[in-house]
Amino acid sequence: MGQLFTDLQAVRLDVEANAVIILDQTSLPGEKVYLSLSTKEAVWDAIHRLKVRGAPAIGITAAYGIYVCCKSLRARKFDDFYKGFVEIRDYFESSRPTAVNLSAALERMERCVLRNRELPVSRIKRQMLREALAIRDEDAASCHRIGVYALSLLRPGMGILTHCNAGHLAVSEYGTALAPVYLGQQQGYNFKVYADETRPLLQGARLTAYELRYAGVDITLICDNMASVVMRKGWVQAVIVGCDRIAMNGDTANKVGTSGLAIMARHYGIPFYVLGPTSTIDRRCPDGNAIVIEERGSEEVTDMWYARRMAPDDVKVYNPAFDVTPANLITAIVTERGIARAPYNETFERWFGEEEKDSAETGSKTEE
Amino acid sequence: MGQLFTDLQAVRLDVEANAVIILDQTSLPGEKVYLSLSTKEAVWDAIHRLKVRGAPAIGITAAYGIYVCCKSLRARKFDDFYKGFVEIRDYFESSRPTAVNLSAALERMERCVLRNRELPVSRIKRQMLREALAIRDEDAASCHRIGVYALSLLRPGMGILTHCNAGHLAVSEYGTALAPVYLGQQQGYNFKVYADETRPLLQGARLTAYELRYAGVDITLICDNMASVVMRKGWVQAVIVGCDRIAMNGDTANKVGTSGLAIMARHYGIPFYVLGPTSTIDRRCPDGNAIVIEERGSEEVTDMWYARRMAPDDVKVYNPAFDVTPANLITAIVTERGIARAPYNETFERWFGEEEKDSAETGSKTEE
Repeated sequence: MGQLFTDLQAVRLDVEANAVIILDQTSLPGEKVYLSLSTKEAVWDAIHRLKVRGAPAIGITAAYGIYVCCKSLRARKFDDFYKGFVEIRDYFESSRPTAVNLSAALERMERCVLRNRELPVSRIKRQMLREALAIRDEDAASCHRIGVYALSLLRPGMGILTHCNAGHLAVSEYGTALAPVYLGQQQGYNFKVYADETRPLLQGARLTAYELRYAGVDITLICDNMASVVMRKGWVQAVIVGCDRIAMNGDTANKVGTSGLAIMARHYGIPFYVLGPTSTIDRRCPDGNAIVIEERGSEEVTDMWYARRMAPDDVKVYNPAFDVTPANLITAIVTERGIARAPYNETFERWFGEEEKDSAETGSKTEE
Repeated sequence: MGQLFTDLQAVRLDVEANAVIILDQTSLPGEKVYLSLSTKEAVWDAIHRLKVRGAPAIGITAAYGIYVCCKSLRARKFDDFYKGFVEIRDYFESSRPTAVNLSAALERMERCVLRNRELPVSRIKRQMLREALAIRDEDAASCHRIGVYALSLLRPGMGILTHCNAGHLAVSEYGTALAPVYLGQQQGYNFKVYADETRPLLQGARLTAYELRYAGVDITLICDNMASVVMRKGWVQAVIVGCDRIAMNGDTANKVGTSGLAIMARHYGIPFYVLGPTSTIDRRCPDGNAIVIEERGSEEVTDMWYARRMAPDDVKVYNPAFDVTPANLITAIVTERGIARAPYNETFERWFGEEEKDSAETGSKTEE
């Protein structure tokens, strides 16, 4: 599997060049362009413009990015170094407001910095490198586990509908929503996958269709508004989506269009699964009302990708990047820790307890 | 109102030049290009490529078109003339399979020809002209009546969501789905309209947004997958769509995406109205299963409008142009004869009875 995707790596760290290397996802599927990011502006811009996207990939890019930028800081005293860190952190935080992985990764990097405040700055930087790589490795491992749990909910030959891209390009290796598809592919499940093109940024057409075809999966592209037709025809036995932020009650923010799919899936009696790492669950967020939804520019709807403008001049456009799917429309939420069903709060609390226990153990093992 | 739209006429007949003049809707909103169609190939192509679209406008184009083409026939004997007529009719029928207005208009032209078979061919041609113009006039009048009935279901200040284009550009004057919007505009209703962009052909972005802005209506463009968000926010108090074919039980074929909207509207408790002339009701069609759904080429999804291809090469694409919304998701169907609610069969039968009575009366008045 690793082999299959080697040349499709969404994000990696070039330690020697001190740069984050990303696959520019806005150039896909036409061209495979790698960008080298070594300034905070370049990292911010890559996240903001969705050159790198997908909640976990954004988290990894932010972790790698803050390491790369802090590595260049000349500060020798901790307080000066930390001031530089905070400035970059705040700046990165502003690049995309909805994805929890961005702030989670930056917080984790901050804890690493503070935990090591007594060390010389050069050694703090080394700890930051370890932490950033750990974030990436844990992400890859957790994707694999998500895939294993989610595959247990599926049967060979099923039709699966997905929205946006929560695959290899959004994460590392298996992806989140697509992890069971890849695992199933390796085990001969012969899924038939339907990918919503996902307007306005076309992540489904450009990225999901691209990476699934790359892996030899049976994939059919549809427009977002055709989901009801393929469901009605009985071609879809499960809807599987990723997530950008999950509230404690299970309400889930994901790419705009997800809530509509969930309503249709309920109407047709099709199970609707949300897949993502526990890092996507926001403990401070009791329900979907507390999730800030990013609104983006009108040009994404009227001009972007097109040879000519496709709407009248100055027409008003509403362009929310995400929507919130209420927990009562979600059949199950699958993370690297298992499968949660309503009421979600209890299971999430248990998972957080396990996580704290695990990280206390890991912490005592790896700290110097 | 007529004034307002004079230079936006979707279809008109130039009797002197013996040509159908259409506004090329594929060039909107960037350019206003009028095309003159005087051969059967040109008419077929304009319908097939959606240069003229919207069920009633297609019907009018077909009626004008078959008149224009028959006018050029050199046949002197009725049998030869009729043979030529049938050939053109069959050819036009193949341009778009779903819209009932196409075949209805052609059938009506055929009845006109057969009814006048005893007349010299030159006079049959004149009768065809009258019949084609009558189809257009009746359409305009029926749009106005649809608007009056539908407006009685709405209240000032309402948010209205619509899909595709069933407005002025799809019909004549008031349009079907947009008729109450225009009437309300004239009466100070201050509707706030949300237009789905309507992938893949973007009729909402290109045409609905264009014509509503032209008329000064408060219009906001959204992507199809954002409908659930605007509904959830409480911005929409009614969904109004046109229709391409209505079965006798009320199942309705309309632009793909309509059935998903109906499911979402039901979920959010928002009324869902289908507006169209009775000519859209297909007596031979008992329910939605009998409606043939046109599937169109993959390039509409992957390439059309774009500066570069937006999906991997050779990816499978499913591109149905329409979907069927089951009658049980429709709050009411509004035609020029009134407002029907479930069970639809009864009301439709009554309307057809009225229609036959009316046309018998009209027939006896206008026939020579």
